[in-house]
Amino acid sequence: MPTPTKSFAAQAADTPLAPFSFDRRDPGPDDVAIDILFCGVCHSDLHTARGEWPGTLYPCVPGHEIVGRVVAVGDRVDRFAVGDIAGVGCMVGSCGHCPSCRDGEQQYCETTGMVGTYNGPDPQSGGHTFGGYSDHIVVDQGFVLKVRHDEKDLAAVAPLLCAGITTYSPLRHWKVGPGQKVGIVGLGGLGHMGVKIAAAMGAHVTVFTTSPDKRDDALRLGAHDVVVSRDEDRMATHRGTFDFILNTVAAPHDLDAFLALLKRDGTMTLVGVPAEPHPAPNVGTLVFGRRSLAGSLIGGIPETQEMLDFCHQHGLTADVEMIPMQEINTAYDRMLKSDVKYRFVIDMQSLRDAA
Amino acid sequence: MPTPTKSFAAQAADTPLAPFSFDRRDPGPDDVAIDILFCGVCHSDLHTARGEWPGTLYPCVPGHEIVGRVVAVGDRVDRFAVGDIAGVGCMVGSCGHCPSCRDGEQQYCETTGMVGTYNGPDPQSGGHTFGGYSDHIVVDQGFVLKVRHDEKDLAAVAPLLCAGITTYSPLRHWKVGPGQKVGIVGLGGLGHMGVKIAAAMGAHVTVFTTSPDKRDDALRLGAHDVVVSRDEDRMATHRGTFDFILNTVAAPHDLDAFLALLKRDGTMTLVGVPAEPHPAPNVGTLVFGRRSLAGSLIGGIPETQEMLDFCHQHGLTADVEMIPMQEINTAYDRMLKSDVKYRFVIDMQSLRDAA
Repeated sequence: MPTPTKSFAAQAADTPLAPFSFDRRDPGPDDVAIDILFCGVCHSDLHTARGEWPGTLYPCVPGHEIVGRVVAVGDRVDRFAVGDIAGVGCMVGSCGHCPSCRDGEQQYCETTGMVGTYNGPDPQSGGHTFGGYSDHIVVDQGFVLKVRHDEKDLAAVAPLLCAGITTYSPLRHWKVGPGQKVGIVGLGGLGHMGVKIAAAMGAHVTVFTTSPDKRDDALRLGAHDVVVSRDEDRMATHRGTFDFILNTVAAPHDLDAFLALLKRDGTMTLVGVPAEPHPAPNVGTLVFGRRSLAGSLIGGIPETQEMLDFCHQHGLTADVEMIPMQEINTAYDRMLKSDVKYRFVIDMQSLRDAA
Repeated sequence: MPTPTKSFAAQAADTPLAPFSFDRRDPGPDDVAIDILFCGVCHSDLHTARGEWPGTLYPCVPGHEIVGRVVAVGDRVDRFAVGDIAGVGCMVGSCGHCPSCRDGEQQYCETTGMVGTYNGPDPQSGGHTFGGYSDHIVVDQGFVLKVRHDEKDLAAVAPLLCAGITTYSPLRHWKVGPGQKVGIVGLGGLGHMGVKIAAAMGAHVTVFTTSPDKRDDALRLGAHDVVVSRDEDRMATHRGTFDFILNTVAAPHDLDAFLALLKRDGTMTLVGVPAEPHPAPNVGTLVFGRRSLAGSLIGGIPETQEMLDFCHQHGLTADVEMIPMQEINTAYDRMLKSDVKYRFVIDMQSLRDAA
């Protein structure tokens, strides 16, 4: 039987999110049905809900940092049982057959593209997927993660499903580890996880921020150094010294200022896609140092599980501020002013308790 | 005793190259004195002679694709003997102590920078270095290469010292080999060597060119496929299929058209530095495929020797057109029109024979 589901949805780009009811599908043989406990609030949610990226389908139920409790499983599901705590991240499907899917890098699916947890094509309903701003979700077991953290930490685990994996994946892919000097550009939802994870990987971590007042917080999160990126003298002292820089800032900015800080063979990886392009990078900075400018998109399902286990092992969660579902529009406004340390998480009990 | 040396030099940015005499230093204990047989003509020579890059010192004697015969060696030189055939490439010195120098990647020297074969600071003379458009040169043994090719091939070996290593180094660094699909953008002096070397490394090689009439030549040089990059339909059929793309085109152009052709985790490496920046690359193309845009500068001395040995082993040389020194200004004009297949090489006998 389909499950009546409460959610908050945007009905159009210019209307606030508001209560919306729909049915989740009856779990198929490979499905895991989850009662959502917590859902993190990602900038992507806002961009999609407000139609700031092309292709938003309405009604739009955002949310792709989902932690919940398994309440039913299909016949073929053996990795999850009723009562387990499970996570769902940015995707709920992919072709399963292309080289990227076979490599467990479903986020780069080369045929259909990954199926987003929201605003993706939903083959079962024929419509589009609805995300985690809801009290219940049904997901193919291939896209469900095991959560091993203590139950008291689950709200702070939710952001790992996007902010955590988005930073963990490039740090791992570019082999960050002890003895390396790593930069994290930007200290927001992504950046604060990048700091925690890079430090846990054993790297020497420097935070680059435009906000001098984030210094103490950066150090508290695990950074070893903080550089205000507008301070050209401080920046100059770091030229040619970084093994890897993870750049979490999506707003257009001067990439050369950071590329020049890389050692020979260093890489700066962008995880944000700006609405307008960054100024063109200086080719000389790449050539005279064999430097690379790269991009990275979340992470595959096996790596997402690895990240969750790594964070569990190292006692890492996100720094979060809990909100009820009903305050999502205010949270969006505050998020736009970077007025959150460092991730809003929706307590989905608020949705269940609502009349 | 210093050696009187004949050369061609530019005396100013707006004057043609003309005969110029100067003295080469007496070889020191670590020096190799070489009578130059052939010198290739690189675009960098023209840019420097004409003051198109900042910092040209006049008189300017260009030339950094040098092959010649050893005529004297210092007391501490044991790798070269009088009569040997030797090569000199783009650099004749570096600090020797920094991490890049210790790694044999002198081109990325992190303290003084590499000392260019021309227009570099010359600690012995107190002036600046004079390059290979001359009949004699004296170089520290640490920057002299062994040439094992047959003597009949030496003119065609000269361009390996810049065009060869500039393409070999990134192809090797990014581990090009059998089973890989590799693109070479641009079929000029650099590109034609890139094709030969990538093919010899066992890769499937596609040439991207704006000139349909280069098709037959590209195939003759070893390419397996040729794509006219203005043909958007042909370009589209190659999306997401390349492991590595070596981009030899310095003129500003749309990088996205090529970045989109890379597989997941593919890299496009630029070896030309445009006078004006390329249009800013699309960050999404990097992110949605974990692609990299990189740069690479010639190659270190050990790798240059490896490249010469590789080319000797595979029977590779450049396709050259020989000119006398006296025709250098005409050659520059033709080079600007890409009217050369694929490298001019100066026969330095012409300088000796001159009155």
